[in-house]
This record gives sequence, structure tokens and C-alpha cells, in this order.
Amino acid sequence: MNYKQIQKAIQAKKSFLCVGLDSDVNKLPASLPKNATGMLAFNKAIIEATLPFAIAYKINTAFYEALGAEGWEVMEKTLEFLPKDVFKIADAKRGDIGNTSKLYAKAFFETLAFDALTIAPYMGEDSVKPFLEYENKWVILLALTSNTGSQDFEMLKLSNERYLYEEVLLKSQEWANHEKMMYVVGATQSEKFQEIRKLAPHHFLLVPGVGTQGGNLEQVIEYGKNEAGGLLINVSRDILFASQANDFAEKANQRAEFWQKQMREKLTSVFQKN
Amino acid sequence: MNYKQIQKAIQAKKSFLCVGLDSDVNKLPASLPKNATGMLAFNKAIIEATLPFAIAYKINTAFYEALGAEGWEVMEKTLEFLPKDVFKIADAKRGDIGNTSKLYAKAFFETLAFDALTIAPYMGEDSVKPFLEYENKWVILLALTSNTGSQDFEMLKLSNERYLYEEVLLKSQEWANHEKMMYVVGATQSEKFQEIRKLAPHHFLLVPGVGTQGGNLEQVIEYGKNEAGGLLINVSRDILFASQANDFAEKANQRAEFWQKQMREKLTSVFQKN
Repeated sequence: MNYKQIQKAIQAKKSFLCVGLDSDVNKLPASLPKNATGMLAFNKAIIEATLPFAIAYKINTAFYEALGAEGWEVMEKTLEFLPKDVFKIADAKRGDIGNTSKLYAKAFFETLAFDALTIAPYMGEDSVKPFLEYENKWVILLALTSNTGSQDFEMLKLSNERYLYEEVLLKSQEWANHEKMMYVVGATQSEKFQEIRKLAPHHFLLVPGVGTQGGNLEQVIEYGKNEAGGLLINVSRDILFASQANDFAEKANQRAEFWQKQMREKLTSVFQKN
Repeated sequence: MNYKQIQKAIQAKKSFLCVGLDSDVNKLPASLPKNATGMLAFNKAIIEATLPFAIAYKINTAFYEALGAEGWEVMEKTLEFLPKDVFKIADAKRGDIGNTSKLYAKAFFETLAFDALTIAPYMGEDSVKPFLEYENKWVILLALTSNTGSQDFEMLKLSNERYLYEEVLLKSQEWANHEKMMYVVGATQSEKFQEIRKLAPHHFLLVPGVGTQGGNLEQVIEYGKNEAGGLLINVSRDILFASQANDFAEKANQRAEFWQKQMREKLTSVFQKN
């Protein structure tokens, strides 16, 4: 999907919602086996229940790799449940020397049919560039993450007075523009969104941390939105594990609707301004 | 393996050599099929050919993930070829919020039987801590990598006058000591080893970049060694693809011996001082 297509999806569904398929096998509803088969059935049910409200799905590879090769199969098969007009993110936080990043690009953009991959910026330009060579595929670079550890390095002041995450936002714009790159900014960092929008006005931001992690949705939209919508707001556990009983899909549907409703109200004003 | 066991392996084999199983399926010798079966046969032959000279093996997950679920199976089976007394590194450069890093730890330390995992430090303490909770398992944190992109962020000066990679070395020592943590330092950065040894005198350093990437082995050992040996020096392509003909294993054996011989000379002096 390209920039315009994502924008259109947001307008059509009146939603910024990205559902994070953090399908921890140990947290599956009692009715499902706690193995790869159970995980796949769970993902199918969650996708069907949330598709009216979600414009994107994010698969965090950790939950799949914990099952080894079988987990990778679940990831492959889960992608088949997702229609073309939703944005498919591999939250894999990869990044390696150029020679090796090429192989990761192949893994996620060719072997698997993801639209986007999250990348850790630490190793710099040549670790990111191979992912940018695919048409209509996206790099989502970690900028300011939602966890407490974001204080340790991301929020360090550099000798040029910028924070490290600000330097990441600026330097990486020399490698690709807003039609190839997005940034991860945690919802728990909502006081930083205004500043970030000055540095990266046109980029989409992938925003985890709403829901269980406690980020403020209203502030994220108020300060994070842009003329294209500009936000993919991820909710994982709050939707996936809304119920651990037989009604888990119904409850997931309700929670997805709950989040989309709040987004819808704010969204109307975004596109009216255009 | 614990600190002492790694030291003993170095002394016994008189070697710092870590063989990087970057077994790119497209570069396999002509005699092997370019698929998962070929990759596994290749790894088996390379391990047998290099085992007399290597104390560690490093599997870079990118080359396996490029084959999807089948690649993960190759990784699982490759580990079975490796004896207990060699150090098994997953070069996966993972790292995520705490909740998710736990699952990565499970993937590499439980589902797969690795001794160590490389981690990108960008997200800070809670992204690293879950990996430290396993007995006799190791975190190998990226500090100063071998690629040109290391200039982009790792080498940035902070307001406290330190480079970012120096801050990573210092801050992370608050999380674990040299018996749980190692650091990645590229061989192409050999002029930095003396400085790094002042900041982390007792830690093992995993050193990629010797061989095809052009790092200077002599300088790495001269300035990087410590009282426990302190180095795992990785060579990948120079050994793996020494020949693409039927004699690939023989040639890999010769290249592994070539590297170990140079290490052996230097090593004698390391342990004589103790």
C-alpha cells in the first residue's frame, strides 16, 4: 500500500486502528489449544471480529518465534487471512549490516507478504537502506518508544542539544521521505507529539501504548494527526484478551468498536480541514 | 556456558575463532540444492570442517528467516550438530518492550538452545532485562558495530562528552556484569579497542568484521584481549565461501586453520601473563 492508499483506508473506515496480533499462546482462551493450531484459529477469529474497525494489523514476531518454526508458519498463514486493503506490519525491530539487512528485507517483503517492517536505528544508514529498495514497502523506524527504557538512550541529550530520538527523526529523512518511511512513537510520550510533528510533519506515526500501557488517545490524535491522517494507533492486549471465555471474539469486536468510535469523532475534523 | 567455561575453551583450542554461519542459500556450492535441505547439509559440513579450530558458532537469523518457517527448522537442526562445549550465539539483534522481550528470550533460550543472543540497545533497560534472567545465558549488546552506519548514531557525541556507544557500555553495566553480558565491537573499529577496554575491562567482546569486511586481526587481539582471553572473533564469509566447488569443506577447514594459527600465536602470550 502507498501513502494515498493508507490515507484512503483511514477515511473509508474512519479509523486509525491497528490491531496488534500479540497472540501469546499462553493467554489463548480456554476453548483453544495452547499451540500453533490454537494461535492460528485465534488470529482468524480476531481478524474477522475486528476487520470492520481496523485499517492495519501488526504482527509482533516475538510471539510467533517463541513457538519456533511452527510459529513462523502461523505468521505465514495469518497473513493469508488479511485482505489487500489493510496495512500489514511486521513488528520485528530488525536491522543489521547492509549485507544482512538485505536478507531480512527478503524474509519480510518477499517470503512473507508484509507491507512494512519496524527497524531499530542504532546501526545507522546502511542497516536501513536495503528495506527502502522495495516499491510500496515501508520502513517504520523506532524513534521514541513507549517503554520506560526509552529514557536510557533515546532521550539522551546530544552535544548539538537534540535528543537522540530527534536526531534519528532528522537524519533518517536524508534516507527516505514520508512515502517510504514511518516512525514509531509511543502513546505514553504524548507530551512529545507536538515537537515530533515539527520535525516530521508529513510522516505516518505508528503509535503503540494505547490501552493496557495507558497512553492517552485523545492527546495522541490531537497532537499527532496530520493532513493525511498520519497515525496508525495500535491496540493489542486490550482487544485480544478482552475476554478469555468463549465470547472472546465478540468482546474483541466490542473493544475494537470502542476504540474506533473515539477515533471516528476526532477524524471527522481531520479531513474536514482538507 | 559460563565465563570460566568460555575461557577454558579458548585455552584448550588456543583460539578466539567464532564461525559465523551466514549460510546464504544463494551462495551454496554448486553440489548442494539451493534450499533448506542444502543449507542444512552445508552447515553440517562446515561445522565438521571447522570444529577443531572454533570455540563458538554464530547463527545470523536473517539468512534463515529469508526461507521462512523452513529456515527456522534449519536453525533448530543446525544447533543439534553443535557439541556442548562450543558457545552458540544467535545473532538476532532483537530487543522490544519488556513484555515482548520475554517472548524473544523464550524463543532463543528455551525453544532454541542458544547460549547467547545479540541485542540492540536502543530501547533501553527493560528491553534487555528479560534476557538476563536465564542462568548461564548471555546478552551480547551492540556497542560499536563494524559497518559504516556506526557513524550515524553510535558515534554521536552526547552532552556529557561521551560517544553514544560509550554510554551504552557504561549504562548497561548497571544491569549486569561481565558474567552475563558481552558487547559487539566491530574489528573495523580497532583504533577504539583500547578506549573500550578502559570502560569494560573484564567483558568478552564479540568481534565481527575480520575477513571480508577487512578488520585488522592483530590489532584486535593486541588491544582487545584481557585476562580471560576476552574475545570471540567472528569470521563468516571468508570461511564459508572459501570455495564454491566440491572442495568447499576442505577449503573452509584450511581457512579456519589459517585464522586460528594467527590467534594461537597471540594467545600464548595472553595466558602466560596469568
